[in-house]
Amino acid sequence: MDSRDEAETVQTSIIRSTGFWAPPDVITNAELVASYNAYAKRFNEEHADAIAAGDVPEVPFSSTDFIANASGIERRHVLEKSGILDIDHLVPRIPPRGFDDISVQAEFAMRAVKPALEKAGRDGSEIDGVIVASSAQQRNFPGLSCEIQNLIGATGWSFDLTMACASALYGLNIANAMIRSGQAKRILVCSPEIMTCINVHSRRDVHFIFGDAASAILVEADDGTPGGWDVLGTHTQNKFSNHLRSDYGFINIAERTVDPDYTPGLDQDGHKVFKDVVSFAPVVARDLMAQIGLEPEAVHRAWLHQANIRMVDMIAKRILGRDRTLENAPSILEEYGNTSSSSVVMNFEKNSEDMKPGETGIMCAYGAGYGVGAAAIRKR
Amino acid sequence: MDSRDEAETVQTSIIRSTGFWAPPDVITNAELVASYNAYAKRFNEEHADAIAAGDVPEVPFSSTDFIANASGIERRHVLEKSGILDIDHLVPRIPPRGFDDISVQAEFAMRAVKPALEKAGRDGSEIDGVIVASSAQQRNFPGLSCEIQNLIGATGWSFDLTMACASALYGLNIANAMIRSGQAKRILVCSPEIMTCINVHSRRDVHFIFGDAASAILVEADDGTPGGWDVLGTHTQNKFSNHLRSDYGFINIAERTVDPDYTPGLDQDGHKVFKDVVSFAPVVARDLMAQIGLEPEAVHRAWLHQANIRMVDMIAKRILGRDRTLENAPSILEEYGNTSSSSVVMNFEKNSEDMKPGETGIMCAYGAGYGVGAAAIRKR
Repeated sequence: MDSRDEAETVQTSIIRSTGFWAPPDVITNAELVASYNAYAKRFNEEHADAIAAGDVPEVPFSSTDFIANASGIERRHVLEKSGILDIDHLVPRIPPRGFDDISVQAEFAMRAVKPALEKAGRDGSEIDGVIVASSAQQRNFPGLSCEIQNLIGATGWSFDLTMACASALYGLNIANAMIRSGQAKRILVCSPEIMTCINVHSRRDVHFIFGDAASAILVEADDGTPGGWDVLGTHTQNKFSNHLRSDYGFINIAERTVDPDYTPGLDQDGHKVFKDVVSFAPVVARDLMAQIGLEPEAVHRAWLHQANIRMVDMIAKRILGRDRTLENAPSILEEYGNTSSSSVVMNFEKNSEDMKPGETGIMCAYGAGYGVGAAAIRKR
Repeated sequence: MDSRDEAETVQTSIIRSTGFWAPPDVITNAELVASYNAYAKRFNEEHADAIAAGDVPEVPFSSTDFIANASGIERRHVLEKSGILDIDHLVPRIPPRGFDDISVQAEFAMRAVKPALEKAGRDGSEIDGVIVASSAQQRNFPGLSCEIQNLIGATGWSFDLTMACASALYGLNIANAMIRSGQAKRILVCSPEIMTCINVHSRRDVHFIFGDAASAILVEADDGTPGGWDVLGTHTQNKFSNHLRSDYGFINIAERTVDPDYTPGLDQDGHKVFKDVVSFAPVVARDLMAQIGLEPEAVHRAWLHQANIRMVDMIAKRILGRDRTLENAPSILEEYGNTSSSSVVMNFEKNSEDMKPGETGIMCAYGAGYGVGAAAIRKR
């Protein structure tokens, strides 16, 4: 809530704590390739005549070398392994739940929310607002954020937002604005990313890219309590592109009245996405740095979204103005794959404890849209 | 973008202009009932044995009296009439589009965006941010907001948010925070609501409730230009409920690996929703009024979300502290039905030209979540 009559002071924001969770089920590249290739072999055998006639394209085989070279990913944590590897499905097995049960994605989010609240010593009832910021939410309504608000015992507001792999930093940006405007004092930004339900595991060019993980960021008005990270500034920018697209959504039912076989996929022109994002993302981060007077050499570390190791190399170098090292731009890609917007928060949490008070870092996430989010933070 | 070093002044927000569009296709209650009852008759005949055995519930018939009494709705504007009335589908017919075509929901949104920009004399390139705030967006990514940003020629940021029938006012609330925090000067909040793709037209209790419409609100920092409406304050609050639920979403594909027949519906306990929302929504509006020192008698008009005419009566009375009249709380329900979050903006635009500078009104929207949004505005 805010008013034109209130005292015109600006609250500044801090990241009080973060949390993340990656499920225990792991799929290695070898396991994924074995499953995918079994699917491809069966498909090609079943469609041999049509393939020979040129009516159906042959499904190409995958390999662990191809995946490692294309992405740098070695394995990924997933919510449900058996369904993804089952060539009759290639999709996680998730039993539908009743209305009285916690929903799958809210439960997934809570695995990251609880540690974030615990680290901050906060009870959920102290939270003013809950933002679910993720690539997708599992239902139209009620809002997933509203369910999480209820689960933690908060009584304020909540809403869901999406901006693909940058969602978490869009949530942080909004939380920062709401705190600075005086609308709220404590906001939880949750990113439960169940990307293995969005991925198409029957397509060689994308079958390996995603893993599942959840993250949470507790953003608070600075009340003088020590600890946490000052939010020096946040910034987001978008440029429309169709080169990474997932058309799954509520109008598909209407589209199938016209084309009963219509099946939205996951469409990616990887080379174009690479080229576009490697150009665009560093500009957004550098714009933020310029506006707050932060020189590249003063940036101790960049926590980047994890999609592709060469992308991390190039974006890190352009943001930092120096070659990437494991210390100045760490990677968690090998272990988790692309976990959409939770990735940058996991990367931060796993690679920030060694930093000293006064040291500054840049979080930068980029993805479909295109949307790029950046945040400059300083250890307190 | 914002910085801790900037001058600590607070920009105040104004609603510079609004726009809306309802499609020309209209379905009267009589047409809808004829179609629904033909469906019910056929279903009951085809399942006569199972119904007689008690294995399948008989589908009850609908009537125009039932609809008018239950809701106050007489007709609704819809994106595509023939598919909704076709008892083989009961869903709009929407041909799938290619990636190079404007998407259905972006095109729908632009019908409201263009008049909003025109009324303000703004070119799209002057807009800093685009928020799509609607009950659902048609795809996971790229963001619909990003496509609209591109269509109007804006180069800033964009994101999509959802909070059911209150989405537009959640968007306004965030826009207000972003302007007050200094992050932006001009923000477009678009609510393209294609509710006939979410509704289940084969269920008697809900088949009549929704119509389709799009709205847009242009929110700007007050730069001294005359006209528009001062935003005196905005407020949102949520309380979780499963009494209005639409489980359509990206994990359905995973749920069908376990239960191939799983079909998410639109589930509503209308009596509970009525009771809960009639209690909750006025409290949120009154909280906002109390915080900005606005007495009920000083509120010239309430523009309320349109879902049910008795709900409008009761919520208006509780917000205004006096009996509802057509003048102090107008209704557009008869003509449009519930058009989700676009409804409150349409209601405002259709019923505000007569107000005089200095007169104050309350916008209040409520829906699934539950989520309630309120805004206090004053004609400049």
